[in-house]
Amino acid sequence: METKKTGIGLIGLGTVGRGTLTLLLNERARIRELTGVDCRLVLAAEVNEQAIRQSRLKKSLITRDWKAVVTHPDIDIVVELIGGTGLALEVITAALKNGKHVVTANKALLALKGNHLFPLARKMKRVVGFEAAVCGGIPVIRALKEGLIANRIHSLFGILNGTANYILSKMRFEGKSFAEALKEAQRLGFAEADPTFDIEGIDSAHKISILASLAFGRYFPFHQIHVEGITRVTDLDIRYAQDMGYVVKLLAMARLSDGGERPYITVAPTLIPADELLAEVNNEYNGVFIAGSATGHTLFTGKGAGGLPTGSAVLSDIVHIASYGETEYGRYTIYPAGLSGKTAPIDRFCSEFYIRLKVLDKPGVMARISGMLGKMGISIATLVQKQSAPDGDAFIVITTHRTEHRRVQQALSRINRLAIVDGAPLCLRIVNDLYH
Amino acid sequence: METKKTGIGLIGLGTVGRGTLTLLLNERARIRELTGVDCRLVLAAEVNEQAIRQSRLKKSLITRDWKAVVTHPDIDIVVELIGGTGLALEVITAALKNGKHVVTANKALLALKGNHLFPLARKMKRVVGFEAAVCGGIPVIRALKEGLIANRIHSLFGILNGTANYILSKMRFEGKSFAEALKEAQRLGFAEADPTFDIEGIDSAHKISILASLAFGRYFPFHQIHVEGITRVTDLDIRYAQDMGYVVKLLAMARLSDGGERPYITVAPTLIPADELLAEVNNEYNGVFIAGSATGHTLFTGKGAGGLPTGSAVLSDIVHIASYGETEYGRYTIYPAGLSGKTAPIDRFCSEFYIRLKVLDKPGVMARISGMLGKMGISIATLVQKQSAPDGDAFIVITTHRTEHRRVQQALSRINRLAIVDGAPLCLRIVNDLYH
Repeated sequence: METKKTGIGLIGLGTVGRGTLTLLLNERARIRELTGVDCRLVLAAEVNEQAIRQSRLKKSLITRDWKAVVTHPDIDIVVELIGGTGLALEVITAALKNGKHVVTANKALLALKGNHLFPLARKMKRVVGFEAAVCGGIPVIRALKEGLIANRIHSLFGILNGTANYILSKMRFEGKSFAEALKEAQRLGFAEADPTFDIEGIDSAHKISILASLAFGRYFPFHQIHVEGITRVTDLDIRYAQDMGYVVKLLAMARLSDGGERPYITVAPTLIPADELLAEVNNEYNGVFIAGSATGHTLFTGKGAGGLPTGSAVLSDIVHIASYGETEYGRYTIYPAGLSGKTAPIDRFCSEFYIRLKVLDKPGVMARISGMLGKMGISIATLVQKQSAPDGDAFIVITTHRTEHRRVQQALSRINRLAIVDGAPLCLRIVNDLYH
Repeated sequence: METKKTGIGLIGLGTVGRGTLTLLLNERARIRELTGVDCRLVLAAEVNEQAIRQSRLKKSLITRDWKAVVTHPDIDIVVELIGGTGLALEVITAALKNGKHVVTANKALLALKGNHLFPLARKMKRVVGFEAAVCGGIPVIRALKEGLIANRIHSLFGILNGTANYILSKMRFEGKSFAEALKEAQRLGFAEADPTFDIEGIDSAHKISILASLAFGRYFPFHQIHVEGITRVTDLDIRYAQDMGYVVKLLAMARLSDGGERPYITVAPTLIPADELLAEVNNEYNGVFIAGSATGHTLFTGKGAGGLPTGSAVLSDIVHIASYGETEYGRYTIYPAGLSGKTAPIDRFCSEFYIRLKVLDKPGVMARISGMLGKMGISIATLVQKQSAPDGDAFIVITTHRTEHRRVQQALSRINRLAIVDGAPLCLRIVNDLYH
């Protein structure tokens, strides 16, 4: 077996950068022996002095100037690990224009600017590897691009954000409030100081954009995705769901609409049956469920984030590109042959729903609300008055039969205006037919 | 993107052959569009007239002579789907010698003759693809070879045989006896007329041979693997296990011994904690749990057998070889660079154990047996007398603390000679530390 020497340039030495570095150095000899690929770090760029110190790299391998990396003649693959959509876009564009292959963990950039990056890569005959952008420790990108290539994908569900999943798990198993669980996640490093992207579902939406684009063979950028976060889910909701045999997960979903070519793509806190495997993907773990036309149902679980799990994905891309780069360019990406997709309008999405209201604890309130729902054509499956709130109000939990998203939204905005209703109702989807 | 035309020769039109054929024909255009690979069936070989009819192939695409396939000038990849270790070996050898790449679903052949096939493939600069040999619908071979390449694998557990898993699931959920569950599996086509390979653990051992060889980077052929089947597990054992919070699975295991380079590789019915995800992989589904040094724990589940799931794996190999074949040969196989491995001796394997005995229902029996175990250095965790058997005997269930395999075996053979013991005791492993 002939040895292929490949020069690596690393831009960004944060958590994932340092994880990648560790693996690149420690596994180099083993990988060379198994695959014939010899990955040598040529140069790393970082401006943060603390990150530089923590990397323990010798000075000759460090630069403060990322341009020195993307133009270095000995570098074949540029690894972009700075994140965000500003400088990172500039870095990747420059790397491609300088004839480098690129490996990135930057889901936001792909979900927002994939339509810029992939045509440029194609033009330059270079590869952009992005296994690390979704579910770090789970090789699901490779599975969709290669392992499941014989399948038409009908639907794909994912628990794609470890922070949100950690918070919901703590609320479920330890009865913590959202705020307590978030604080603990931050203390343990599972959540960032500004957790907005995680808890508002934005990070999950970036990732489902990438997975859905691969699954359906056209580009579904972030702005097409309907997103709801978990900030309004309370520990009570989680308990009520549990009483009915459900678990609340921040679920990313991409599913072809019935009879339609266009998929629904959404991220929202969702009730799924407690006996589904996906319901048991807990804490910081991620899970991806894929329904393929040939394989049927497959489920992949593992750690979605962290320096080493994500570094593992980065390195697998490096080895793949070093092995096959010259023949891989232009193949199957999230923006195949410039095909832009269009999602189905969420208004038409049908499912069952969970609605939790806080109401004045007075006779006739249940009748009034159920009557109103009935008039609007929403069929109630269960309606239960739960314990009273400290202020004397009562919680009502309603589950509906299958109905349209927009119909429920209309009903909720009417209910919200009622004087007997205290605060905005919470409405969550129930998905019983994961395996449909 | 340039189109790569690839000629396919198919040998064997049984269930998997026809599944592959369906996908090859139906997905050809889509795969060409996404990847640039155009897979054309050139010729298929089969001798069974019924299988030929069921394939609905036109006559010009069928031959009775497999040699016509392996020598056909337009064929680049020969797909061997006849199974077994006789003719199949001849077919693959001839295909490689004629300069063809090979794709096979033949786990037995790889686990028995991998040390012949892979050196020949290397010499001929050709690739042998075998994604379909293990867990058809789950792209776990590709995950080990590429997705997890940055990881040193510490342990790998699998539910690798759908038939055995189906039988154990029916016993668990429907209280069926082994014989009833087997009969149902046969009726539904999940078990073959001769189910020996499935229920005796041989098929699982072929598969763990392949997975372990990939995971540990050297060849561990079938004959090195310690194998126990499920035929002696009763529905009572499954119930007793459940009472203690366990599920019985036919578990294939490959795990590095403590401090040692050599792995334990075994297949045996095993008690695993009911709250593990792997415990919820039921019916005909397979599951593979992999502990990697970088990713931590990952789990892959899906259908392990059947025409379309396995055909999906075959086609993914075809596309991979058509894309990268010329650069892939010689890389990472189950027999990398001719490295033969050696397993750790099972005698030294430590775990907890479940022992079920049938004894005369007389005073002093429990004391006698526990005394005997104690004298042999086996520490008892629990000892429970269960309900009486119809013949007036009683069942005793013992669980031990962590001890060596050989110590338990010695104790069992002594106990077996006692007059108060009726029939051979059943001894199953308990693995509490999947995630250790």
